Amino acid sequence: MTKDYTQLWESLGLNLGKHEGLLTVLSDAYKNIYLSQKNRPEGMKYFDFVISEVHGLRIEELYEAKKNKRKVIGTFCVYVPEELILAVDGVFVGLCAGAEVGFEEAEEYVPRNTCALIKAFMGFKLAGLCPYAEMTDLIVGETTCDGKKKAYEIFNDITKKMYVMEIPNMKNESDRILWLNEVEKFKIKLENLTVKKITLDNLKKAVNIVNEKRKALKRLSKLRAYDPVPISGLDALLVNQISFYDDPIRFTQKVNELCDELEERVKRGEGVFPKGKTRILIAGSPFAIPNWKLHAIIENSGAVVVGEESCVGSRNYRELTDEKFSTVEEGIQKIASRYLTIDCACFTPNSERIDNIKNLKKALNADGVIHYSLQFCTPYMMESFKIDKLVDFPFMRIETDYSMEDFGQLKTRIEAFLETLQ
Amino acid sequence: MTKDYTQLWESLGLNLGKHEGLLTVLSDAYKNIYLSQKNRPEGMKYFDFVISEVHGLRIEELYEAKKNKRKVIGTFCVYVPEELILAVDGVFVGLCAGAEVGFEEAEEYVPRNTCALIKAFMGFKLAGLCPYAEMTDLIVGETTCDGKKKAYEIFNDITKKMYVMEIPNMKNESDRILWLNEVEKFKIKLENLTVKKITLDNLKKAVNIVNEKRKALKRLSKLRAYDPVPISGLDALLVNQISFYDDPIRFTQKVNELCDELEERVKRGEGVFPKGKTRILIAGSPFAIPNWKLHAIIENSGAVVVGEESCVGSRNYRELTDEKFSTVEEGIQKIASRYLTIDCACFTPNSERIDNIKNLKKALNADGVIHYSLQFCTPYMMESFKIDKLVDFPFMRIETDYSMEDFGQLKTRIEAFLETLQ
Repeated sequence: MTKDYTQLWESLGLNLGKHEGLLTVLSDAYKNIYLSQKNRPEGMKYFDFVISEVHGLRIEELYEAKKNKRKVIGTFCVYVPEELILAVDGVFVGLCAGAEVGFEEAEEYVPRNTCALIKAFMGFKLAGLCPYAEMTDLIVGETTCDGKKKAYEIFNDITKKMYVMEIPNMKNESDRILWLNEVEKFKIKLENLTVKKITLDNLKKAVNIVNEKRKALKRLSKLRAYDPVPISGLDALLVNQISFYDDPIRFTQKVNELCDELEERVKRGEGVFPKGKTRILIAGSPFAIPNWKLHAIIENSGAVVVGEESCVGSRNYRELTDEKFSTVEEGIQKIASRYLTIDCACFTPNSERIDNIKNLKKALNADGVIHYSLQFCTPYMMESFKIDKLVDFPFMRIETDYSMEDFGQLKTRIEAFLETLQ
Repeated sequence: MTKDYTQLWESLGLNLGKHEGLLTVLSDAYKNIYLSQKNRPEGMKYFDFVISEVHGLRIEELYEAKKNKRKVIGTFCVYVPEELILAVDGVFVGLCAGAEVGFEEAEEYVPRNTCALIKAFMGFKLAGLCPYAEMTDLIVGETTCDGKKKAYEIFNDITKKMYVMEIPNMKNESDRILWLNEVEKFKIKLENLTVKKITLDNLKKAVNIVNEKRKALKRLSKLRAYDPVPISGLDALLVNQISFYDDPIRFTQKVNELCDELEERVKRGEGVFPKGKTRILIAGSPFAIPNWKLHAIIENSGAVVVGEESCVGSRNYRELTDEKFSTVEEGIQKIASRYLTIDCACFTPNSERIDNIKNLKKALNADGVIHYSLQFCTPYMMESFKIDKLVDFPFMRIETDYSMEDFGQLKTRIEAFLETLQ
């Protein structure tokens, strides 16, 4: 941290003692997992800085934004249309959900066998450890899975800040109508919250900002197709994770600077690892900061992660919003259509996801796919069984959570899988 | 069994050896749990007979129905409109889903930590032990939970018979439109399958048949409010379970005959147990045949179960369909509205369920509520935590599956809870 934020944290009502402990653990983990990597691109220094200030400078920025009457909107899912939040000059931030924090407190509100991501967002809040949650004016949930859908009811009892968007279960015509209606309702909700109107001008600008961010992330993804790969999976994952927290314009610029550097590396035939490493595509559940376990295991077992078919990954940037619209209404329609292309396992059927995995594996020259499900994440867990039967390339199912208890067992299984790929 | 059905089972492709074993286990369990009860109403003899012939005479009836060009429709959920199936002269049957059967086979298709009901319906089919599944022309699923929603995709790969109705996640205006559209689509599906038209006449008759069935079940429920209670919870549960399998007209008649007898008992002040027993309302997940574990434990611990706030219980019969309609279209609307009153935990929010539990507890003079969730049944599990915080009467959460491994532990916990009620 560049300075002392104690007063800020105190004003947010954080549990200072525990928060100090959390930051120490996070900082140590980051040193061990990230800073120990070799041949990192220079461009990662920005993202290292962001992480070191994730509960500091960024929170101060949000504090300043709020002083300037901007609203802070917390989200948990790639289904929440960022474009609308930006159009009303709002700030969107992903909330803390990636560490085994406050689980004891959370288990008084949700069952023990709830997925770690849900227990974490409840736990972070209940333990007073998520400055983002405290900064929010509104927290937007969605009905993507049973766990989140029902936990949001309870989270609303605790925070009184929830707004839930309904994601349908299918993608038929009536679902498209329902979802468009949800996006329109969200627009009105944001306009009322911010006392600002969404206009053609601010909507076009917002769509462009988000599209540029997605393009930068796509550009980064494509650079991972090269052998030798110019960036580690861990570093690329971090960039994807930070996309949910950082200012989108600054973030896009920094990702593009990183990509410029990676392009130079590619031209020089330089990589972060030697050429010929076993290449893994990870598919499945999201990876919230600081959930780096699976990438760390794979890259410490002699392979490299070349892509994430994940909400913190390709599901977040694969599709752009069509910028050709000439009324606000038409813009809302384009946004709604774009979001309904997301191949979340919450849909039935969701056969496009299998195609997307196949295409991504091919595009990234991956040797095999590791399907990762958070424990009790039923949609992805179930879908992985189906995919397993339908693909003809090396495919491994993994189910895990945030604890380190299964670290050894996972490493053994992954090493065995990697051996079959050589 | 009244006769030898081996040939019929063979023609359905059942695994004869395993099926024989299953029937023996079922028969023994029934003797131990049901036939050992004292003071049973005479009217239960019919239901004893139905159970003894559940894989025999009823299957033969379905076989005869199919010979007469009637279609057999398998269902898993109270959200599937029976009225429409009856209107096209179809037969609806619940599929086998209540026992730990074929789990090893099922776990090749779905994760181990999937709810027992889902593993059971997959297991029964995969092990060749459900004659109902084999008799079906169509199996109707619904998107009530992540587990079923995704398992149906896999079940369709196995059976090629699935049709899935979309249940929305909320009950807003756009959800009502979506659901009405689903009911209309289901009507067309059934008309195409049976090559029969739904007319005002056959729809009115069908609505009446189903309403009469629900009225009989409501009548039975109300009789359980008396002290001493004229029927055991186990017997009442069985009647509710059989409502998903039996011919609805015959079933209604038999339930009403049973209720006549129970009314006489009430008049005489006679009960199946002595007056003053501790009275329990069970709330939560469904109980598929032969899932009698929880009722058996409670009634062997000195209390009586007076109601089931469950799909196999009040959720199945609480609301009737308005019979006042003068076109098919209007009838479909009335049916769609009626089904959307069901307070399944799949909805968010679902606050009417809490009121329904409170009202049912009061109406049945229950001393306490035991909330029962099938393990990994996220919607009910999560909702039970919320309800627990909102009610001011004795409330206990239980999470279990079909195995007998936790029998002792459950009994200890339940006995401790019952002690607090005395």
